[in-house]
Amino acid sequence: MANEISEIPEWQELVARKRNECQQKIPSEWTLSADLLNAPPHLLEYDAPRKSGLLSELELDLTENYTATQLLAKLASGNISSLALTTALCKRAAIAQQLTSCLTETCFPQALDRARFLDEYLEREKKPIGPLHGLPISMKDSFCIEGLQSTVGYVSFLKNDPATKNSALVAMLLELGAVLYVKTNIPQTMMTGDSENNIFGRTLNPHNTSLTAGGSSGGEGSLVGFRGSVLGVGTDIAGSIRIPALCCGVYGFKPTAQRIPFGGQVSGAMEGLPGLIPAAGPLGHSIADLQLFMKHVLGEGKAWEYDSSAFAAPWNDSPRATIENNGSLTIGVLAENKEFPLHPLSSKLTRAGHRIVYLESDKEELSVAYLSRLAFQYFIYGPSEDNIKSSGEPLVKSVARFDSPMFTGPFPVDMELETFAKINKLHQARTRVNNAWRQVWVDQKLDVVLAPGAQNTAVAHDTYGWPPYTVMWNVLDYPACIIPFGKASKELDPESMETDDKVQPNYNPDEIDGAPCAIQIITPRFQDEKCLWAAEIIDRAIRSV
Amino acid sequence: MANEISEIPEWQELVARKRNECQQKIPSEWTLSADLLNAPPHLLEYDAPRKSGLLSELELDLTENYTATQLLAKLASGNISSLALTTALCKRAAIAQQLTSCLTETCFPQALDRARFLDEYLEREKKPIGPLHGLPISMKDSFCIEGLQSTVGYVSFLKNDPATKNSALVAMLLELGAVLYVKTNIPQTMMTGDSENNIFGRTLNPHNTSLTAGGSSGGEGSLVGFRGSVLGVGTDIAGSIRIPALCCGVYGFKPTAQRIPFGGQVSGAMEGLPGLIPAAGPLGHSIADLQLFMKHVLGEGKAWEYDSSAFAAPWNDSPRATIENNGSLTIGVLAENKEFPLHPLSSKLTRAGHRIVYLESDKEELSVAYLSRLAFQYFIYGPSEDNIKSSGEPLVKSVARFDSPMFTGPFPVDMELETFAKINKLHQARTRVNNAWRQVWVDQKLDVVLAPGAQNTAVAHDTYGWPPYTVMWNVLDYPACIIPFGKASKELDPESMETDDKVQPNYNPDEIDGAPCAIQIITPRFQDEKCLWAAEIIDRAIRSV
Repeated sequence: MANEISEIPEWQELVARKRNECQQKIPSEWTLSADLLNAPPHLLEYDAPRKSGLLSELELDLTENYTATQLLAKLASGNISSLALTTALCKRAAIAQQLTSCLTETCFPQALDRARFLDEYLEREKKPIGPLHGLPISMKDSFCIEGLQSTVGYVSFLKNDPATKNSALVAMLLELGAVLYVKTNIPQTMMTGDSENNIFGRTLNPHNTSLTAGGSSGGEGSLVGFRGSVLGVGTDIAGSIRIPALCCGVYGFKPTAQRIPFGGQVSGAMEGLPGLIPAAGPLGHSIADLQLFMKHVLGEGKAWEYDSSAFAAPWNDSPRATIENNGSLTIGVLAENKEFPLHPLSSKLTRAGHRIVYLESDKEELSVAYLSRLAFQYFIYGPSEDNIKSSGEPLVKSVARFDSPMFTGPFPVDMELETFAKINKLHQARTRVNNAWRQVWVDQKLDVVLAPGAQNTAVAHDTYGWPPYTVMWNVLDYPACIIPFGKASKELDPESMETDDKVQPNYNPDEIDGAPCAIQIITPRFQDEKCLWAAEIIDRAIRSV
Repeated sequence: MANEISEIPEWQELVARKRNECQQKIPSEWTLSADLLNAPPHLLEYDAPRKSGLLSELELDLTENYTATQLLAKLASGNISSLALTTALCKRAAIAQQLTSCLTETCFPQALDRARFLDEYLEREKKPIGPLHGLPISMKDSFCIEGLQSTVGYVSFLKNDPATKNSALVAMLLELGAVLYVKTNIPQTMMTGDSENNIFGRTLNPHNTSLTAGGSSGGEGSLVGFRGSVLGVGTDIAGSIRIPALCCGVYGFKPTAQRIPFGGQVSGAMEGLPGLIPAAGPLGHSIADLQLFMKHVLGEGKAWEYDSSAFAAPWNDSPRATIENNGSLTIGVLAENKEFPLHPLSSKLTRAGHRIVYLESDKEELSVAYLSRLAFQYFIYGPSEDNIKSSGEPLVKSVARFDSPMFTGPFPVDMELETFAKINKLHQARTRVNNAWRQVWVDQKLDVVLAPGAQNTAVAHDTYGWPPYTVMWNVLDYPACIIPFGKASKELDPESMETDDKVQPNYNPDEIDGAPCAIQIITPRFQDEKCLWAAEIIDRAIRSV
């Protein structure tokens, strides 16, 4: 009370202005009643979209009962208009935003204009403009869409102009016929499992708002989980597609890096240092939709025309025939790592009628813990840009407590080495890991590895910890697919579990009861197609039991 | 004369012992007469193999008149035995070695044993063991073959044991059915265009022994040129496959890096620093043979099973159909760079009946000179291992005068920057180059670029200079194919040309008269298959005119 005039810091003013702008862009007729804004935590069970009264029966049907693949067939045949579908998804996304803070930017009017254009095109030309004709797709905030800002949650980036150029993937999706309508929320720094930042707030999990939606593509996970998006695009360098997918009960696929055009995003990170390479990939409601995305983006191998770092490697259909001819899969099951014990949820998921090989875990180069430490060292060995300090904004809680796996052992490489020597040694360590895993695959004649996506399900906010079971596949650059399956149950697994490392989350049966569970399917680098075909078979198998 | 006992330095003793060992491994009945050892410089014109009297008519026929593709058909049908073919190539390689010093290690007895085993296998099983059944393939010295040393020309490496493990590609070629019989010579450091080192001497060009055979896969170029090998494997980080190919008048293909398994070679270089990535690839007598090699090594995408850094991307046949359907190619012709003026040999090579686009050259990121400087900076910005000093051996001449393109302008990135910042800036510079070239390709709707492989043909020893027209495609990691075409002619191009930079070679019509000429065909990264199909069409077109 020393100062009579309380001054609001500049960063808070910038944020207030931005929030107001974003708020104004949601049509007033789509705003929720106070009742609904106080909906109970289990939003999906509560069926908030229907209760809002904002969607017609047709709109509820379109957003709830079809895969992207099915919707595209309806769009191409003129059975539904892109305008009707886009309107439905814009409304549902607006509702999701008000209940879960899953969005950053919206461009509803532009999306509706684009849908009208596509509808007219179809009527005039009697054929769709491309294989994604008329389908609304949501994008993580890091992607640039002309006319929208890309702040990735940094207050300092609020001073940047709106994008004047589309990211490579955005340009490509538009040429394929997609409609873009929202960008989705991420954590400050994009390096935690909690999608919170000081501009757009904290994204909540639609299954249970007291749980994290995951990160860094948490807005995508939450929006797709809420069915405010049929197909969304995230990015993943440690689990950032797969963590939101498993937290929010949707399918998610991290491809091999540089297969999907990644260029032209805003990251705020230093590029070009040797390290883990992030990948862009889809989140959706079925394996078929993940395949759809990959198939059309890879297509005949044109991804390089949009991004010079993308491979000109076409979608390869042959693994499907090989798998079908073989009749069954050889599935390696990843051993639990004692330092990252599994919450009691995954044990029932290993029966699939195929040949199961339990993988050894005693060799350092194969172990979850060693790969985690190697990943962590890659994340921190070099300098990083500080995009936070300059604006005066504080760290959000999950960034302040950025977790590490270093309680499991030492850095793989001496941190005191001179830079070039350190880079060289890190490369050698990773090469040993790559070779050890290759050898397992070849020796065991594996088709895929089945692993948990995490020790846990979605957990309470800011407790997600370090993501060992996702990041290990980024170290290897192996494609990995999250399949949602089952729910946590305090009846079936009533005993709580304490991790004793003060980093990883405890298992609290009451807290996470009903949260979605998931498994992860992995293939070696560049075998994205095989990963998705095997995932389809496994997905079918576990649901038919 | 101060010392009465003249002491031979230890390194010379080591070398003498090694040379003697290598010499002993050539059967005495295959040694050449003094007459032949004094053959005139134009060994091919002189027809040294026939004059030697060591090869039967059948052996001359087998080594001179068939592609690898044709020989494989004969082998698979039992029309010829692997033993007969292997014997013929061992003899011819032994002759080549005595006249051009193109070999490092030989394993003739093991090769003949392997051939016998394969012949028996075919007779017993009534089918070939693999698609390369019985075909002898020569390998650059850097590849490890069990039981043979890999010294890559460093005297200090003479103390190393013979290899106990095959390189990834060696293991794969053996599984595909190949016979390995020789390893081939390289320059000290593997970073010059002259394949000379203090152990194995200087490789000579079989077209004219007063000219360089090129480097670093100079032994391959010379041996294949001499037809002592039907199909050879080199590696290329700046032109090391293509320079020997163009110098020795054979076909050579540098694939996209990491498509052909590269792992398990000896290089003596520090790995893992961001930079240009070397690629392994074939040298041969026809485009069909280069395709054959690529097709079987890539196959169904099993390269990763031998080398974790190799892509699991299968050979892709679809570009062939696309090209055939289109009927004609759009060919971008690379502009001559004024700092690297072309010797007057390439102008007649641009008529091919296809759409020709003359590419602009004024933009820095597209220019031969800028890409050369960027490559050079990548080569020298980090520390390098010194494998020379410890043994006491001197630098060979071409290493001592290691050339650079820095007379054309400044380093792309400030050399004084701190290491991480420098890596970051180099990455950004390369990204700009990648994007600029991508844009040219897309805007001009190019199928391929046609370029010279060098300013010049093979030139006098130790004058090759810096390889701007090959290294630029390594910066971009674009596949590139050398097609030999025509000969230098002092009648047609009688005027000499002086380069004024004291680095690049002058054009001396008398000196290089009769040397092979070549063109280079390039496609974007990962479009290896398209590069080779287009090269086939262009190869046919220029020969039918």
